[in-house]
Amino acid sequence: MSRPEYAVGIDFGTLSGRALVVAVEDGREIASAESVYAHGVVTDAVPGSPGRRLPADWALQVPSDYVDVLRTAVPEAIRKAGIDPADVIAVGTDFTSCTMIPTTADGTPLCELPAFVDRPHAYVKLWKHHAAQGQADRINALAAERGEPWLARYGGLVSSEWEFAKGLQVLEEDPELFAAMERWVEASDWIVWQLCGKYVRNACATGYKAIYQDGHYPSEDFLSALHPSFGDFVNAHINQPVVQLGERAGTLTAEAASWTGLPVGIPVAVGNVDAHVSAPAAQAVDDGQMVAIMGTSTCHVMSSSVLREVPGMCGVVDGGIVPGRWGYEAGQSGVGDVFAWFVDHGTPAYVHADAAAAGLTVHEHLTALAAAQAVGEHGLVVLDWHSGNRSVLVDHGLSGVVLGQTLATRPEDVYRALIEATAFGTRTIIDAFVGSGVPVEELVVAGGLARNALLMQIYSDVTRLPLSVVGSAQGPALGAALHAAVAAGAYADIRAAAKAMGSVRKAVYVPDEERARTYDRLYAEYVTLHDYFGRGGNEVMHRLRTLRDEASRIRERAR
Amino acid sequence: MSRPEYAVGIDFGTLSGRALVVAVEDGREIASAESVYAHGVVTDAVPGSPGRRLPADWALQVPSDYVDVLRTAVPEAIRKAGIDPADVIAVGTDFTSCTMIPTTADGTPLCELPAFVDRPHAYVKLWKHHAAQGQADRINALAAERGEPWLARYGGLVSSEWEFAKGLQVLEEDPELFAAMERWVEASDWIVWQLCGKYVRNACATGYKAIYQDGHYPSEDFLSALHPSFGDFVNAHINQPVVQLGERAGTLTAEAASWTGLPVGIPVAVGNVDAHVSAPAAQAVDDGQMVAIMGTSTCHVMSSSVLREVPGMCGVVDGGIVPGRWGYEAGQSGVGDVFAWFVDHGTPAYVHADAAAAGLTVHEHLTALAAAQAVGEHGLVVLDWHSGNRSVLVDHGLSGVVLGQTLATRPEDVYRALIEATAFGTRTIIDAFVGSGVPVEELVVAGGLARNALLMQIYSDVTRLPLSVVGSAQGPALGAALHAAVAAGAYADIRAAAKAMGSVRKAVYVPDEERARTYDRLYAEYVTLHDYFGRGGNEVMHRLRTLRDEASRIRERAR
Repeated sequence: MSRPEYAVGIDFGTLSGRALVVAVEDGREIASAESVYAHGVVTDAVPGSPGRRLPADWALQVPSDYVDVLRTAVPEAIRKAGIDPADVIAVGTDFTSCTMIPTTADGTPLCELPAFVDRPHAYVKLWKHHAAQGQADRINALAAERGEPWLARYGGLVSSEWEFAKGLQVLEEDPELFAAMERWVEASDWIVWQLCGKYVRNACATGYKAIYQDGHYPSEDFLSALHPSFGDFVNAHINQPVVQLGERAGTLTAEAASWTGLPVGIPVAVGNVDAHVSAPAAQAVDDGQMVAIMGTSTCHVMSSSVLREVPGMCGVVDGGIVPGRWGYEAGQSGVGDVFAWFVDHGTPAYVHADAAAAGLTVHEHLTALAAAQAVGEHGLVVLDWHSGNRSVLVDHGLSGVVLGQTLATRPEDVYRALIEATAFGTRTIIDAFVGSGVPVEELVVAGGLARNALLMQIYSDVTRLPLSVVGSAQGPALGAALHAAVAAGAYADIRAAAKAMGSVRKAVYVPDEERARTYDRLYAEYVTLHDYFGRGGNEVMHRLRTLRDEASRIRERAR
Repeated sequence: MSRPEYAVGIDFGTLSGRALVVAVEDGREIASAESVYAHGVVTDAVPGSPGRRLPADWALQVPSDYVDVLRTAVPEAIRKAGIDPADVIAVGTDFTSCTMIPTTADGTPLCELPAFVDRPHAYVKLWKHHAAQGQADRINALAAERGEPWLARYGGLVSSEWEFAKGLQVLEEDPELFAAMERWVEASDWIVWQLCGKYVRNACATGYKAIYQDGHYPSEDFLSALHPSFGDFVNAHINQPVVQLGERAGTLTAEAASWTGLPVGIPVAVGNVDAHVSAPAAQAVDDGQMVAIMGTSTCHVMSSSVLREVPGMCGVVDGGIVPGRWGYEAGQSGVGDVFAWFVDHGTPAYVHADAAAAGLTVHEHLTALAAAQAVGEHGLVVLDWHSGNRSVLVDHGLSGVVLGQTLATRPEDVYRALIEATAFGTRTIIDAFVGSGVPVEELVVAGGLARNALLMQIYSDVTRLPLSVVGSAQGPALGAALHAAVAAGAYADIRAAAKAMGSVRKAVYVPDEERARTYDRLYAEYVTLHDYFGRGGNEVMHRLRTLRDEASRIRERAR
């Protein structure tokens, strides 16, 4: 009998990294371990200079936290698995995106250089750093004005979360640091660089976040028009070989082997993005299978044989999910974090007491109360833009609305309306795809919110789609391991590996026609408000944000 | 030295009645006592039949609770005052309005007859009973269609709270009880009837709530067109002598003297309405002095020499506040109750804990946090329609909106935005008056909310008006006592009594121009949303209410 073979997948999330040991043969999950980032998400003050406050909308991280995952979570997972590390044949990773690290030419993060520890722009700009909206607005306006051909590949608007907007923010706000920045690296590629000592770009992040289409980045001419010193940004800072998903980036270095306890020289798969890597883990690699990774935010990814320009999508990339197909991405910037915010800051003590008495979490208790309601009984409609809108409006300046409250409104009413609003947000995205000629026939759900049965049923009723659920509780890490197996040559391609190693429970939730009909009425209200506040009917949200920023500055000056 | 003279004023509020002993000479308040209504506000089930649930929007009371105020609060106030009851020269009252009692010909409430104790329509319909909106809609539509001359005297719309809408609801929903109903009595007149044994109507309630203008009620022809059995409603149920404010309705009966401990035969002033009676108590009887009585709801009253038809006002009545002037009324249906609802159902435990640690009420704590903010810093705008809109939209089918929330929004942000929204609501009313040619130059505030200095300053900044504050903590009861003194002949008229007995602190709050300018921007947002959701731009609130009612019925049937 031959020796067993394992792959290790490492999923770098927003708050922690997880390592998962997987059997290459059938995707069996042997053991996993988590390493919480010591610095978490930094929004208050510069890590190296606690007295220096960060403005609103900033979100930073510290790259050594990522390396700590390699040092602690990987060896712990191997130990818990009780396997011989020598039987690990490859390692794969996935990362949040677009998360950007300014480095020197050898990949050293600028925040690790003593000269820059107190500079906010020296740190990692996490995906949800939203302070480059002004730069994104100018990129969009200029691209529209010039008729840049790539714009439609991103639904007509690029996001403030992406490489160029964030990079331009560095240039404009800290030109000295920008001058010292030799590389502007996607974290998904940086971590692979740490593992194999080679810096290559993965086709996924490059296509979606670096505006790389048909072999080209935005032109020097375009970038110069944004800012005179931005023209050579591509060649000077981001241009590296682009490698397809499932390919080998390199092999594990001695240093990385010493961190992880894995064998020197095993294949390291090219980097990947957490959402996209989940699709093969859920065996969702065919046309019409939209994967929704639902956690603090939701990311939607789907492969398709057809290329269409869907208004307001995040992007469509050749080989963005599996080589040879068009990979579509869309997203909702606030989902689980909105529910958490409501529980933390909007629910009274009696709800927490009742939950404790029933032995439930507050989320479970509110869900149970909300589940007893008929559709529409709460009389509310909510716009779920508390964290802005990623798709299909692509506008982080939007904000939340709760409409219909009376003195009889109770916390479970708002909670249910918040869940429904996020379901309407997903339907808005699906409608945009279907309306553009990209069919959506199934929702395959991954992420923590899949555990909420009421939420899942509401999504099925609202979208009139069957909901399947990824079989693994660690979809992204399983997907990363699956890509490692492909990179090691254990499978011919990602599709073959998905069939053998992925897992999914099909049609766990199916729509109820009566509820769906009532939701059509509520959804119509949502769409009207969505378009009124989101498409220029009333720019009140942007004006309120301007006023808020002015008022904050007045108060800062008064201090 | 002559013996001192006292008047007793009795204020019947929403939850309790208060008796106040006042020196006739100078308005000095000697003592007061309160009697909380045993049945409070009944919204869940019929008092005489606990298994019989009330529909949404119902609000009932039990008339014996009012008599209990006469039996307990009045003697207690006299005892606490330490005066000889023989020195009380008159008694006056005021009441919530439009609060309606169905009775027999001798004034016995139908709910006190064994045959009717289990009938919801046998009970008092409290002012905030809002289940006659359908009837009000039909009254308004028919009046507009027929060009009824009285309609403009009520801002173009009569309220579902008033006598005809509520009476028509009785006829249509319980015709048997309607047939047994010999009188349909304003509570303000019913309580006077109990005191002096005579049923007369006060000019105030009759003019505002019974559509009595220029000596006429709506015509038999009009009422027949609403419902074939409604034609003789005026003559059969509500037509009684109309008496001017400050006049004597009769003298205290032996029975009422035995309840109250007051001398038999002393003058009893004609009934009055809590808001209107407060104006002389605050010496606000001149043109341009708008009195705002701010508690759970806010009522605005103002006397003027000019007659104008203000769109969306509650009404204008000849002698509605003081004989010889036009008395204007407007109102906001939800103010303090919206703040209370938010504290009860929308603020987390940590806010309550922090308040307790600081030795403050939650309202005080949230106010202190909110007071530290610059105008606009919270980034929110709210529509304060959680309890509908009385003026200027006159639509109880509207509901609340909170717009601009992000994950950084905290409870004090919403609290401040709620306060501001009610200030914007008041400004909307003032704008309607000024725009119609009725100047408003001063706001004179009475009611419990006058104690909140932040709220008062916000109202001054938002309206750009000086805010005066009524000197008495018991404005309505003082006003009732003042009218008693007039009825007893101690003063020539209400204006003379107001000068001697009323009290006010002038211009306690004055507007700050910088804040006022910023509020102009927020108010512009409020007005846009107000008109969009309130004037037909988007009827979503009414559709959500319809859907809510349908869903509730489905669930009721499923039980």
